[in-house]
Amino acid sequence: MSMVENPVKGWQGVPFSAVKIKDEFWRPRLEVLKNVTIGVCLDQCERTNRIANFALAGGLAEGQYEGKYYNDSDVYKVLEGAAYALMTDRDPALEAEIDRIAGLIEAAQESDGYLSTYYTVEAPELKWTDMEKHEMYNGGHLIEAAVAYYQATGKRRLLDVACRLADHYDATFGPGKRHWAEGHEEIELALVKLFRATGEERYWRLALWLLEERGHGHGVGAIWDKPDWGPAYCQDDVPVRDIREVKGHAVRAMYLYTAMADVVLASNDTAYLDALDRVWAHTVERNLYVTGGIGPSVHNEGFTHDYDLPNESAYCETCAAIAMAFWNHRMNLLHGDGKYADLVEREMYNGALSGISLSGDKFFYVNPLASKGEHHRVEWFHTSCCPTNLARFLPAIGQYAYAATEDGIAVNQYMSSETTVDLGGGVGTVRIAQTTAYPWDGRVALEVTPEQAGEFAVRLRLPGWCRSYRISAQGERVEGAEALAEKGYLVLRRYWTPGDTIELELDMPVEAIRSRPEVEANRGRIAFQRGPVVYCVEQTGNDGLRYDAFALAAHEAFAVEHRVELLGGVTVLRGRTVEGAACELIPYYAWDNREAGFMQVWVREAEDGRLYR
Amino acid sequence: MSMVENPVKGWQGVPFSAVKIKDEFWRPRLEVLKNVTIGVCLDQCERTNRIANFALAGGLAEGQYEGKYYNDSDVYKVLEGAAYALMTDRDPALEAEIDRIAGLIEAAQESDGYLSTYYTVEAPELKWTDMEKHEMYNGGHLIEAAVAYYQATGKRRLLDVACRLADHYDATFGPGKRHWAEGHEEIELALVKLFRATGEERYWRLALWLLEERGHGHGVGAIWDKPDWGPAYCQDDVPVRDIREVKGHAVRAMYLYTAMADVVLASNDTAYLDALDRVWAHTVERNLYVTGGIGPSVHNEGFTHDYDLPNESAYCETCAAIAMAFWNHRMNLLHGDGKYADLVEREMYNGALSGISLSGDKFFYVNPLASKGEHHRVEWFHTSCCPTNLARFLPAIGQYAYAATEDGIAVNQYMSSETTVDLGGGVGTVRIAQTTAYPWDGRVALEVTPEQAGEFAVRLRLPGWCRSYRISAQGERVEGAEALAEKGYLVLRRYWTPGDTIELELDMPVEAIRSRPEVEANRGRIAFQRGPVVYCVEQTGNDGLRYDAFALAAHEAFAVEHRVELLGGVTVLRGRTVEGAACELIPYYAWDNREAGFMQVWVREAEDGRLYR
Repeated sequence: MSMVENPVKGWQGVPFSAVKIKDEFWRPRLEVLKNVTIGVCLDQCERTNRIANFALAGGLAEGQYEGKYYNDSDVYKVLEGAAYALMTDRDPALEAEIDRIAGLIEAAQESDGYLSTYYTVEAPELKWTDMEKHEMYNGGHLIEAAVAYYQATGKRRLLDVACRLADHYDATFGPGKRHWAEGHEEIELALVKLFRATGEERYWRLALWLLEERGHGHGVGAIWDKPDWGPAYCQDDVPVRDIREVKGHAVRAMYLYTAMADVVLASNDTAYLDALDRVWAHTVERNLYVTGGIGPSVHNEGFTHDYDLPNESAYCETCAAIAMAFWNHRMNLLHGDGKYADLVEREMYNGALSGISLSGDKFFYVNPLASKGEHHRVEWFHTSCCPTNLARFLPAIGQYAYAATEDGIAVNQYMSSETTVDLGGGVGTVRIAQTTAYPWDGRVALEVTPEQAGEFAVRLRLPGWCRSYRISAQGERVEGAEALAEKGYLVLRRYWTPGDTIELELDMPVEAIRSRPEVEANRGRIAFQRGPVVYCVEQTGNDGLRYDAFALAAHEAFAVEHRVELLGGVTVLRGRTVEGAACELIPYYAWDNREAGFMQVWVREAEDGRLYR
Repeated sequence: MSMVENPVKGWQGVPFSAVKIKDEFWRPRLEVLKNVTIGVCLDQCERTNRIANFALAGGLAEGQYEGKYYNDSDVYKVLEGAAYALMTDRDPALEAEIDRIAGLIEAAQESDGYLSTYYTVEAPELKWTDMEKHEMYNGGHLIEAAVAYYQATGKRRLLDVACRLADHYDATFGPGKRHWAEGHEEIELALVKLFRATGEERYWRLALWLLEERGHGHGVGAIWDKPDWGPAYCQDDVPVRDIREVKGHAVRAMYLYTAMADVVLASNDTAYLDALDRVWAHTVERNLYVTGGIGPSVHNEGFTHDYDLPNESAYCETCAAIAMAFWNHRMNLLHGDGKYADLVEREMYNGALSGISLSGDKFFYVNPLASKGEHHRVEWFHTSCCPTNLARFLPAIGQYAYAATEDGIAVNQYMSSETTVDLGGGVGTVRIAQTTAYPWDGRVALEVTPEQAGEFAVRLRLPGWCRSYRISAQGERVEGAEALAEKGYLVLRRYWTPGDTIELELDMPVEAIRSRPEVEANRGRIAFQRGPVVYCVEQTGNDGLRYDAFALAAHEAFAVEHRVELLGGVTVLRGRTVEGAACELIPYYAWDNREAGFMQVWVREAEDGRLYR
C-alpha cells in the first residue's frame, strides 16, 4: 500500500494549540480544567498508588501492585491532558511534576521495551496470554501522552519510551509473527498518532495490521469465552471491513472506528470508508441518545439491540461520549460533511460535558437521562477512565473548531476564538477571528484576514438543529447558492481581503423533540433542545413537581432567560406543565450541581400535544 | 332572560376606528383596499346591474332583474367596507357615491319594510316561501352596512331602512307568528349589531329566536329536499344548543357560530357556550387546513368528513376564512383565550389574505393548497361574495388588535399601531403604542401610557406557533409567573406609569409541519411556516422544479431573506430540495401574483426526513 495518490484526501484539522479560545462558555471551563481537574486527577493517581505502581515496576520502591491492570492508562491520560494544558498555558511546577512521573514511567519500562506495570510486578510470566488485559491499551495511552508532552515541551524522554514500546510491539506481533486482537482498542489510533509525530511508517502499518487481525478468531482470553460477551464485546466478531452494526462495549467500538478513520487516510482502503459509513448510520440513527450518549447497558458497558434507549438505566459512559466525538471529528475531516461535526457539538455541550461537575472535581461515569435523585457525581472511581478522559478531552476542545479544507477553511464549532490557517499558494496564512455568545445565542461574527487577498472558500457549519438562518458578508446579504447548505456548510467561495467580515445568525428557538416511534422508552414523551443544548427538568427549581408525575405540551412556549449567576451562567427555559405548575428547564450538562433531586430529559407529553393549542 | 348578572362577561373588542394602523404590512394593504378594491367592487356592482336592481325595485327605472337573488348583499358589503374606509380616512366623493346608492336602496324598500330586490321585481308573490332564497341574508348585510355607515358618518338614512326592515321581520316572524329558519345565516349576527347600535333589545331577541328556530323541522325550500344536501347543509339538522360537529356549507356554519357567540353575551345561556366549544374543537382539530382554510368540497361549498383535507381540490372559500376570523374573534372575547386570536391571525396572514391580489383588483373565491398552474385570481364572479367580503374584512382589520379585559388591556394582534382604551376607574384611558415588523420579525415594542398611573394588566398574546420568547418591561427581564403564558397570554399585572415600555421578542424560526396522520392527503408531506405565515413553493422562482416531483427534508435549513422589492415586500425562504435543486418558498397569501405556474403548500417529504441529518 502506498501513501501517494490517495483517493481519500480529507481535511486537515487545526490543532487546538493553534486555536486561541476567548470564549465565555469554554474559557472558564479550560481554566477550571487546568486549575482543578488536572490536579485532582494527579492527586487521585498518587493516592490510589497508580503512580506508585510505576515505581514498583521500575524497582524504585517495594510493595504490592495496587488496583486494576489498566490503571497505568489513567496516569497516561492525565499526563496527556496536562500536556495539552501546558501547550496553551506554560506552568513550570506542573511540568516538573510530569517530568517526575515520566522518570518513573521510563524506569518501569523493561529492557525489551515492554511496559505494563501490572504484568511486570504481578505476573510477568502471563504477559501476552490474555488479549483483554489491556496491555496494548495501556501502551496506546502512553503513546498519546508521550506525543502530547513532546509537542508541548519538546522533551523526548516519554516519546522515546513510547517508541521503544511500539517497536517492541512491532517486533513481537505482525505478519509471520504472533497474532493479536487487542481486547480494548486504543493502540491502533495511538500508533497512527505516533506515525504522524515521528514519520515512521511502520507504526501506521502496525495499526493497520492490528485492525486487520480482528474478526478472524485470533482472540484469546476469558472475555471471548463468556457466553454473554464473546468476541462481539470487543469487536472481534467480524473483520473490520465487514462491520455493519455497532456492537459490544461502546468505548471500544468508538476507539476502533476512530482508528479505522485514522488509518484509512494512510491505507487508502475505501472498504474501510464503506464500513465506517454503514456503522455510523447504524449508530446514529438507531442507537444514539438525544444527549449524544451511547451504550445503554451496564452489563456490557455497551450496545444491546436497536432502539433500546432506556432513560433511568441508561449507561452512557462519559468515555463513550468523548470517543464518539473523537470518531466524528475524524469522520468530519474524512468526508468534509458537517453532520459529523454536529455530533461533535452534541457531545461537547451534552453527553461528554455532563461527565464533569461545574467545580471540575466530580465526575459521572454513567450519564442517565433520568434519575429519581440517587445518581451523583463523585470524586473518583476504582475504574477511573472517565475523569482522566475528560482531563484530556476538554483542554483540546479547540481542535474541533476549525479545519483546513482543500480550497479554504471550515468553521466547525462556534466559540469566540482566533486561529491562523496556512492555505499555502498565493494566499498564505489566513487569520480567522470569531466572536459569539454560543451556545446561548446563534449570532456569530467572523473576521477573515488573509496574508494576501485572494480567492478561497470559507465554510460555516450549519448545525443540524438549525432550520433557518441569515447570512451576510461585508454587511451585505449573501444570496444565491452561496447562502445554501452544501454537505452541512454554507460555503462562501469568494475573493477575500484582509478584515473582511461575515455575520451568521442561526435561529435558535426551543424545539420539542420526539423519539423515533421504535424507542419504547420515549413513547408519549418529549425532550426539549435549544440550539445545541439539550435541556432537562431538575428537582431544584421545580419544587412543585414530582418525578415523572407531570407533563409538558410539545407546543409549550418557554420564556428564555439567560442567568449569569446560575450554574456558571446558563440560559434556562421557563414554562408550565399542563397541570399549570411553573416549570424550569436547565441544560442537561449542568444537572446535579445543586441539591440532590430528580432529573428527567424525556418528560411525559401532554396527551393533547399533537392537537391545536 | 335578562341582561343583568350575566355569567358570560367577555372582553370588549376595541373597534378598528379607535386603532390607528401605521404598520408596514397592513398600512399599504388598507390603502390599496380603499384606493383600488372599493372602487373596483362598486364598479362591478354597477356594471353587473347589482345597483340597477335597486332602482328597478324602487320604480326609478325599468327593465329586468339581473343576476342571482342574493346580489343585493354584494352592494351592501361594499358599502359596509366603504364605510369602514371612511372611518379612518374621510373621502367626500366616496361618501357621495354611497349616499346615491343609499337613496336607491331606500327607494327599493317596500312600504311594509320588505327589502329584497329579486322578489320585489321578479316574484313578489313568492316572498317568504323558500327559506333558502337569502331574503334575510340580504337583509343582514343591509343592516351591517347601515350600522357601519351610520357610525362612519352619523347619517341615519340607511340605518332607518335597516330598522324598518328588522321591524318588518319582527312583525312577521317570532313566537306566535311565522316560523323561519333562514337558509344562509347572517341576519342573526346582523340583528345583534343593530341591537348594539340602537339599544333596541327586540333585535337581539329576534336573533335569538331565529337561532332557536333551527333544527326543529321548520325549514322549507328546495335545498331541504335535496338528498345530498338536506337540512345539515344550512345547519338546520339539530337545535343549535345540541350542535356537536361542524357540517354543511362552511360560510353559513361560521356565520351561525358567530351569531351564537354574539347572542350568548346577551342571552346568558351557557348551553350555547358548550355547543360553541364543542364545534370549535371539531372544526379546528379535524377540519382546518394549515392555511386556515375550511370546507374542502366544491359540492356543498363546505364540510365532508373528518380529516378530509385534499389540497388541489380544496375549496376553502375566501368567505369561509373571513367568517372563521369573525367567529374566532368573538370566541376570543368570550373566553379571553389567545388560542382563538391565533386563528384570527392564521386567517389574517394566510387563508383570508390569499383571496385578494397584491394589486387589490383580483380575487380568489376558491383557495386551494396546491395547483398545477390553472388556478388564478379573477376580477369578479357571478356569485361575488368573496371580493365584497374582503372589501369589508380588510379595512376593519384593526379591530382584531386590541381588547379591553376585565382588568386591563389585551394585545391580540401585532401590528404597528396606536390605540386608546378606556379602563375607567382610577386609571382612566390608556394609550398603547405598538411598533413591530411583524409578521416578518417577532420583536414587538409597546409603550403604555395610562391617563393616571395605576395597576392593571396588560396581556400580550403568545402565538400558538411560538415555542420560545423573551420579555422585558422597562428594560428589565420579566420573571416569575408574569413571564409565563396564561390562556395564551403573557399577563403583565403591575403598576403602570405613563411611558412605560414592554419589549417582547418571539422567536420566529422556520418550522416544518406535519399533518395529523389521519389526513390522507398529507401523508408523507410537510409544510413550512415561519411565525404566522404559511409558505408555499411557486413555480416562479423555482424554474428547476416540476409540480410534485421534488421533496424537501423536514430538517432543511432555510436562508431567511427579506426582499422589499418582491411581492410587496416578503420574507422568502431559500433552501434545497433533497435532489439538490435550489428552492424558494414564498408566503402562501402572495402566490399567483406573478407568472402563472404551479403552487404547493404541502410538499413531498424526503423519505429520510425523520432520521438524523
